[in-house]
Amino acid sequence: MTAPAELSPTLQLACDLIRRPSVTPVDADCQTQMMNRLGAVGFQLEPMRFEDVDNFWASHGNQAGPVLCFAGHTDVVPTGPVQQWQHEPFEALIDADGMLCGRGAADMKGSLASMVVACERFVQDYPNHRGKVTFLITSDEEGPAHHGTKAVVERLKARNERLDWCIVGEPSSTSLLGDVVKNGRRGSLGATLTVRGKQGHVAYPHLARNPIHLAAPALAELAAEHWDEGNAFFPPTSFQISNLNAGTGATNVVPGELTALFNFRFSTESTVEGLQQRVAAILDKHQLQWHIDWALSGLPFLTEPGDLLDAVSSSIKAVTGRETRPSTSGGTSDGRFIATMGTQVVELGPVNATIHQVDERILASDLDLLTEIYYQTMVRLLA
Amino acid sequence: MTAPAELSPTLQLACDLIRRPSVTPVDADCQTQMMNRLGAVGFQLEPMRFEDVDNFWASHGNQAGPVLCFAGHTDVVPTGPVQQWQHEPFEALIDADGMLCGRGAADMKGSLASMVVACERFVQDYPNHRGKVTFLITSDEEGPAHHGTKAVVERLKARNERLDWCIVGEPSSTSLLGDVVKNGRRGSLGATLTVRGKQGHVAYPHLARNPIHLAAPALAELAAEHWDEGNAFFPPTSFQISNLNAGTGATNVVPGELTALFNFRFSTESTVEGLQQRVAAILDKHQLQWHIDWALSGLPFLTEPGDLLDAVSSSIKAVTGRETRPSTSGGTSDGRFIATMGTQVVELGPVNATIHQVDERILASDLDLLTEIYYQTMVRLLA
Repeated sequence: MTAPAELSPTLQLACDLIRRPSVTPVDADCQTQMMNRLGAVGFQLEPMRFEDVDNFWASHGNQAGPVLCFAGHTDVVPTGPVQQWQHEPFEALIDADGMLCGRGAADMKGSLASMVVACERFVQDYPNHRGKVTFLITSDEEGPAHHGTKAVVERLKARNERLDWCIVGEPSSTSLLGDVVKNGRRGSLGATLTVRGKQGHVAYPHLARNPIHLAAPALAELAAEHWDEGNAFFPPTSFQISNLNAGTGATNVVPGELTALFNFRFSTESTVEGLQQRVAAILDKHQLQWHIDWALSGLPFLTEPGDLLDAVSSSIKAVTGRETRPSTSGGTSDGRFIATMGTQVVELGPVNATIHQVDERILASDLDLLTEIYYQTMVRLLA
Repeated sequence: MTAPAELSPTLQLACDLIRRPSVTPVDADCQTQMMNRLGAVGFQLEPMRFEDVDNFWASHGNQAGPVLCFAGHTDVVPTGPVQQWQHEPFEALIDADGMLCGRGAADMKGSLASMVVACERFVQDYPNHRGKVTFLITSDEEGPAHHGTKAVVERLKARNERLDWCIVGEPSSTSLLGDVVKNGRRGSLGATLTVRGKQGHVAYPHLARNPIHLAAPALAELAAEHWDEGNAFFPPTSFQISNLNAGTGATNVVPGELTALFNFRFSTESTVEGLQQRVAAILDKHQLQWHIDWALSGLPFLTEPGDLLDAVSSSIKAVTGRETRPSTSGGTSDGRFIATMGTQVVELGPVNATIHQVDERILASDLDLLTEIYYQTMVRLLA
């Protein structure tokens, strides 16, 4: 184990943040620590607490030029069973293999440390840089996310702030640092489907209408449907039923209704309205009595090749020698909220192989490389 | 409301039994009351308590001739919400329309009272009747039924008792007393089906295998299958899924398995093994990873026209003027256990329109007619 004094500035800050057990929505003063560092190099600070969620906004520079935002979250998911961890999850140590271990190492306190250290260097090296460098940090990305990035974005929109480019520190890399950046995400559309039948006794099925029997062919058709083919940027839209429930528990009762929860992860080839209409058509074709409560979690967004993606790719290439691969796969992120400001959004962070698992860890030296990539990206965009 | 002193012996006993709140498996001394009455006219009594279930066996006559058994249960189903009843469920009153109201009036304390009073008259009128008249009474017909009629039948078999004919007091009539008797019942075969998939994240469906999607076409095919056409005595075999469950509750997780509970009510045209093989073939055709735990509740049984059915039909005709209709429809009854002794079994009791409901009730005068039908049946078979 390496003594803290020998660590790089990025690793020192990453360890400090990991040692603060900031399980959603607790911040545990991670943001105070980040603001202290940014304030010391001239950033203007604006804490934005909404309900029980700490967020902050910080900026350096002037409104005239382009605005680059670093976005991320200080909250982490729970540890799960602590006894299954090799090291205490909030201890933040570097093991014999050079791995920085601890909850949040990959998702995403490592990225936060790299962003802060990169910006400290950038504003000292380029005190009169063009445009603005900003931070949008929340402590509720892993939770309900109602009072986090979404709320900050609403406030920024209300006062007509402009964000041209945004780098979200989500762990985008899959096996080596920078091998993948996320340049968009699929939309997510959830639904609670209720199919009504008529309750009765299994011995008298002619007096009942079994919603399981009625719904099964429709569910089979929904599961087999091809919704679109995707496109150059997006995989095909996928449909998954996550929960299916019917029955009273009694074995001799035909239930009165069936409930299914399902979710679309959809590409820009499909629209919310289109998917809703096609689901309705299939349910109607099977003559079901049905009701759906729809819940839109996020529209798909896409950052096509341009200034931001070019700067990020070039910086990755310069620092690691790697050609990065833009991807829109995977789950949702707070990027979906920021994209609604018309912002080009790219997610770039460390390797995501261990996120949300026990023994979350990343190669410690990757964080210093990530700091350099963030720094060079700023130089390319704002120097 | 009629004062108890003006009631017939059958209605007096019916009211006495209804006022004892014998919800399964509680007997509340109903059986003691019945045994007191039967013992007083010379029946030999044999209480048979198994575990927490009271049962009794009683007999009058000699082993040489044919043996007729009256079978039934003193337990009743719960009242459900008492405030929804027009009258207190265990009060046992006769309302302005001449209906005997209370839990158990139809299912089946009314029948028990008719049996006891009919037998009192029969053994007094025919003290030297041929063969034997017996009673097989349980307090666990509405419950698990492990320690009730099934256990008594096992004891009777162990000592080589013979039962030629059995009248079960289940409420067989549908709109008028005696319009229907049950001369058999379908078999009941239950199953717990587990379909295995592979758990995963809804955003990465290619890494998971969704058991809901895999099972839906197979469930649709099972629900649409025609299992047999029934025959002159039985309706076609029916298949019903009573419970269907899959999912972790989370909307972003593809579940690892699906569970379905289903039940066959099957005619003598299908066998247990045949149904099991056909289900397996459908599941295999859809290439599912599946497992089934089967639970056979009862084989189908049938009492074809003969001495017992003739005697019952003639007595109904003589008392009510009605042609009765034999039927094998409906749920299971303890008749399935008794039929395994090679016994001809017929179910005959009052109108079943309100059983297991709030405001359970029957026409009070029907009970005196039922007593007369039971009495005349005994005369026809054993006088």
